[in-house]
Amino acid sequence: MSIRIGILGYGNLGRGVECAVKHNPDMELVAVFTRRDPKTVNILTETAEVYSVDEAEMMKDKIDVLILCGGSATDLPVQTPKFAQWFNVVDSFDTHAKIPEHFADVDKTASQNGHVGIISVGWDPGMFSLNRMYANAILTNGKDYTFWGKGVSQGHSDAIRRIEGVKDGKQYTIPVDAALEAVRKGENPELTTRQKHTRECFVVAEEGADLARIEQEIKTMPNYFDEYDTTVHFISQEELKAEHSGIPHGGFVIRSGRTGWNDENSHIIEYSLKLDSNPEFTSSVIVAYARAAYRMNQEGQKGCKTVFDVAPAYLSALDGAELRKHLL
Amino acid sequence: MSIRIGILGYGNLGRGVECAVKHNPDMELVAVFTRRDPKTVNILTETAEVYSVDEAEMMKDKIDVLILCGGSATDLPVQTPKFAQWFNVVDSFDTHAKIPEHFADVDKTASQNGHVGIISVGWDPGMFSLNRMYANAILTNGKDYTFWGKGVSQGHSDAIRRIEGVKDGKQYTIPVDAALEAVRKGENPELTTRQKHTRECFVVAEEGADLARIEQEIKTMPNYFDEYDTTVHFISQEELKAEHSGIPHGGFVIRSGRTGWNDENSHIIEYSLKLDSNPEFTSSVIVAYARAAYRMNQEGQKGCKTVFDVAPAYLSALDGAELRKHLL
Repeated sequence: MSIRIGILGYGNLGRGVECAVKHNPDMELVAVFTRRDPKTVNILTETAEVYSVDEAEMMKDKIDVLILCGGSATDLPVQTPKFAQWFNVVDSFDTHAKIPEHFADVDKTASQNGHVGIISVGWDPGMFSLNRMYANAILTNGKDYTFWGKGVSQGHSDAIRRIEGVKDGKQYTIPVDAALEAVRKGENPELTTRQKHTRECFVVAEEGADLARIEQEIKTMPNYFDEYDTTVHFISQEELKAEHSGIPHGGFVIRSGRTGWNDENSHIIEYSLKLDSNPEFTSSVIVAYARAAYRMNQEGQKGCKTVFDVAPAYLSALDGAELRKHLL
Repeated sequence: MSIRIGILGYGNLGRGVECAVKHNPDMELVAVFTRRDPKTVNILTETAEVYSVDEAEMMKDKIDVLILCGGSATDLPVQTPKFAQWFNVVDSFDTHAKIPEHFADVDKTASQNGHVGIISVGWDPGMFSLNRMYANAILTNGKDYTFWGKGVSQGHSDAIRRIEGVKDGKQYTIPVDAALEAVRKGENPELTTRQKHTRECFVVAEEGADLARIEQEIKTMPNYFDEYDTTVHFISQEELKAEHSGIPHGGFVIRSGRTGWNDENSHIIEYSLKLDSNPEFTSSVIVAYARAAYRMNQEGQKGCKTVFDVAPAYLSALDGAELRKHLL
């Protein structure tokens, strides 16, 4: 029997989850829940139905894992604990500073109702966190580096679009090659924000807008751009659409550490991602953890978990013997 | 209270474990067991004792985890199941084809005696296996590549030294850059053995030996060298000692895969290691898994496990709340 999946929220991430479920033959998409009028939401999976979010509780016995695809700012802090009363849940909550609070909230309802909730799944938090953790446990004497990009930052793109005279825009975060190379050589550099990443903006200005003023406003914007070397390119709406409509991302997690009786040997552990589609990759991670949530719950586990708490084998459709034979 | 560690076998790996224990303040080395005369074995840790391997059973209540540092060919198939009757054990069994059999043997005694045995821990098998498994679970539609090196292959170095007229020698396995680059670009190349790695040999010949014949014998040696492009350098014993006495290694695990409703997006997951000392890094991984073996056993778990079965959090000295706060 397939693992029955529900999706709450049908944006880029929800659509990514739908695609990822298609790539996992032991799963089936049963329902998509939306806050919009269900009649206006067209999904790709012919065998699944679209429902109003208010109908979710009624489906609690027909879905094994509900995947929450809302935003971290306002949706998930409310939705994940709420829906954990009826379902095993997985979310991609990514407000790092608020993870302890979110964990406690989800743990409470999930535990009370005998469900498993896995939070903060994706690549950062998610696979990057796992790699930081494994590398720290192995090389206890060392230094961590995380670089992001090259990729589109939604938050920075939004910030550009809020500037007066800007019609549209896209921002790329780019790791600085020289910094990456210094880290890979085991030089353990102390790097400032400016030394680690640059920012590149592609901006469509409104007709007659003051380009010099827009460029200045971007480059000096506090928190978003002022601590970075930023490049601004003004382009046409057509060019933005043709060249910059993808959502690529990626990055690097590197730990450099020393071993030996007198710390005489140096080691570098590096994990990197190069992603054509940030939401589709994130969704693919989430769907693997949905399998884990289902299986852990089947074994009687409950409460809130993160990627740190999930034994890797739970993620795979292969059984233990197959894994040992083919992948160990 | 510290986790009390024992080491069985004091070669490069055993010494590496000793160094790794020093880097983990929640652990202490209690005993080293040897098949040699204990009086001839000098260890670095002043607070630990050296015993004959025959005295191990007597120490069963004084050691939480015994780390087996013997070889995979003849030592571990016997030792790991045997000592699992008295101890939680961790080994680095690396004969891939015989892992299922070894797993069954260790599982039997470990389960019967209420211990945890974690086998095949290190980097390959070990961290490379984990990365293959995670990447396969995420990108279900894709292709795996593993490259090894640049690093010293003990087996190939031994093979060179068995040739008549060879006094000493060292062999490096080197990944082919062009192949690595093609994989990273998502080209999904089909690569032959020759296209993936080259082999470089540094050989000290006996005086008057026929160098051309030695070089020919190396390059045509079945299984070891005949399927590779091999370079042979004849050097002096002094140069070998000065330039090639380290045991560096490393490698790359890459998975290239596609997502999207029509497989329209491509992704690359890459994990790489660059190690000054192969045995010290392997030992550092093993020691983290010794912590896991101890904790899992404390929770009542028993039987044989591999890296696939161990939730990442068990490896870290930090507790769940600290991990979520600092590394998620």
